[in-house]
Amino acid sequence: MSEAGASGTKIAVIGLGSMGYGIAGSLARRGFQVVGYDVRAETLAQFAREHGTAAATPAAAAKEAQIIVIVVVNSDQTGEALFNKSGVVETAGRGAVVVSCATMAPGRARQLALEVENHGLLYLDAPISGGTQRAAEGALTVLASGSPAAFAKARPVLDAMAAKVYDLGEEPGIGASFKIVNQLLAGVHIAAACEAIALASRLGLDLARVYEVIAASAGNSWMFENRVPHILAGDYAARSAVDIFTKDLGIVADISRSEKFPTPVASSALQMFLMTAAAGMGRDDDASVARLYAMIAGLKLPGVE
Amino acid sequence: MSEAGASGTKIAVIGLGSMGYGIAGSLARRGFQVVGYDVRAETLAQFAREHGTAAATPAAAAKEAQIIVIVVVNSDQTGEALFNKSGVVETAGRGAVVVSCATMAPGRARQLALEVENHGLLYLDAPISGGTQRAAEGALTVLASGSPAAFAKARPVLDAMAAKVYDLGEEPGIGASFKIVNQLLAGVHIAAACEAIALASRLGLDLARVYEVIAASAGNSWMFENRVPHILAGDYAARSAVDIFTKDLGIVADISRSEKFPTPVASSALQMFLMTAAAGMGRDDDASVARLYAMIAGLKLPGVE
Repeated sequence: MSEAGASGTKIAVIGLGSMGYGIAGSLARRGFQVVGYDVRAETLAQFAREHGTAAATPAAAAKEAQIIVIVVVNSDQTGEALFNKSGVVETAGRGAVVVSCATMAPGRARQLALEVENHGLLYLDAPISGGTQRAAEGALTVLASGSPAAFAKARPVLDAMAAKVYDLGEEPGIGASFKIVNQLLAGVHIAAACEAIALASRLGLDLARVYEVIAASAGNSWMFENRVPHILAGDYAARSAVDIFTKDLGIVADISRSEKFPTPVASSALQMFLMTAAAGMGRDDDASVARLYAMIAGLKLPGVE
Repeated sequence: MSEAGASGTKIAVIGLGSMGYGIAGSLARRGFQVVGYDVRAETLAQFAREHGTAAATPAAAAKEAQIIVIVVVNSDQTGEALFNKSGVVETAGRGAVVVSCATMAPGRARQLALEVENHGLLYLDAPISGGTQRAAEGALTVLASGSPAAFAKARPVLDAMAAKVYDLGEEPGIGASFKIVNQLLAGVHIAAACEAIALASRLGLDLARVYEVIAASAGNSWMFENRVPHILAGDYAARSAVDIFTKDLGIVADISRSEKFPTPVASSALQMFLMTAAAGMGRDDDASVARLYAMIAGLKLPGVE
């Protein structure tokens, strides 16, 4: 949509972390009037200086907003932003759309949708993928499901935050299911990449050459290609943290138990992320799983003591 | 090299299975004089009709050959082709190159190289990647290591069988190590793809849509993109069999123990291939791991009862 078209529309963005801040900035650049909320006062002040208006509570942010984008870490925080005292539902106008971006179990997404709709609002189950940089560029992938009415109303905002919007069905929970399937694979691929690079190091191979050869071979994955450069550079500043995968593979494990469906490969990857978090690297880059193998086996990796 | 340049050179290809047959055909098309050997008389007769000359033993094939390409399943078969009665070393001329393509532990590759060199021959540790179709097209990837003399002599043959030849170092065993790192990843990615697709089925998702979305997302891998279409088509005719990965992840497990280096993610994938083989699908396509999950959990997958 044109910037002129967007300029009248008020959007609330709840949660200005590494993903939410980028989304809010993208929306502001497209001419939306963005009101942001975050629990951290400093982040909120920065947002007000750079992109829009700061609100003191989710309720204040959602007042008069037609679309409320919630970009927090998990379903509990999403529920709190919506339903706690000074939550979104206290002020959001009838017919406003809640765009829920956190990764969560499909059952939880269905439940939140029901509660939100009981307040006269629309709900879009809209997990996002693509990382911090693509969030800032308005080039995310959105894996969304929800009613046609919710889609129609949220469409200009989805188009402004994403390069690709998948409309996966009318039921909330479908978007969450697709995201979980993606995260199962992403988590396993990161853990496998770290295991493979650490083994290559143990075998005395030139790791830069391993990266070059594997990236051009059948052993490649999107995550191998994206994360191994962090290991080669010895740079573990978090683009996406280990704790994201203890959470997301934890959701896979929850679903696995509740559905009585075995996920042994994802389970072994989850244990590696948990070991890495237990060793004090939970907030570091998820490629830190390679450092755990190095620590256990006394390997020298770049930048690792 | 030009066909005229190749036409004088005699090449032995030992092992005319799904990979070796394609390699031998590619070499014949480029003008090499190819003598083939296989334990199966029928395969050998077909090769003689289509591409070259059939030999009754590895020794007969290797007689007067400047280059001997060994494309058998594992290191034991490679050793037998070389050193058993009527083996390659009985007849191969001094300075001929043995190009060893089977996936094996790096230590075993070093040992074979030493024994071959003791017979006055050159040895190239040259595992291959790319599958049956690329073998037939002369478009494999070769992950090779060995002496400059071995490389120089084998180069025209490597160029005729491969789209990409990596020269990874002078020591035999380096090629094997690169291949093992690739196979660790490839095996984990296949098992993870099967686990993810089976979970998606359990969650009631449209599997064709899952394929489309994941292939465009951060959860993608080369193996996901290549193998999931087999599951969607319910087509488990082996392009690459489950037993290849019980073998290759078995080598990873052997190395893991001998190097005292933990590989828990590869280990969980190996167990899934072993379960699939135990359930009678060892010679079927490696995407059959998805059928195992379906069998265990009573899922309906395309083409699965």
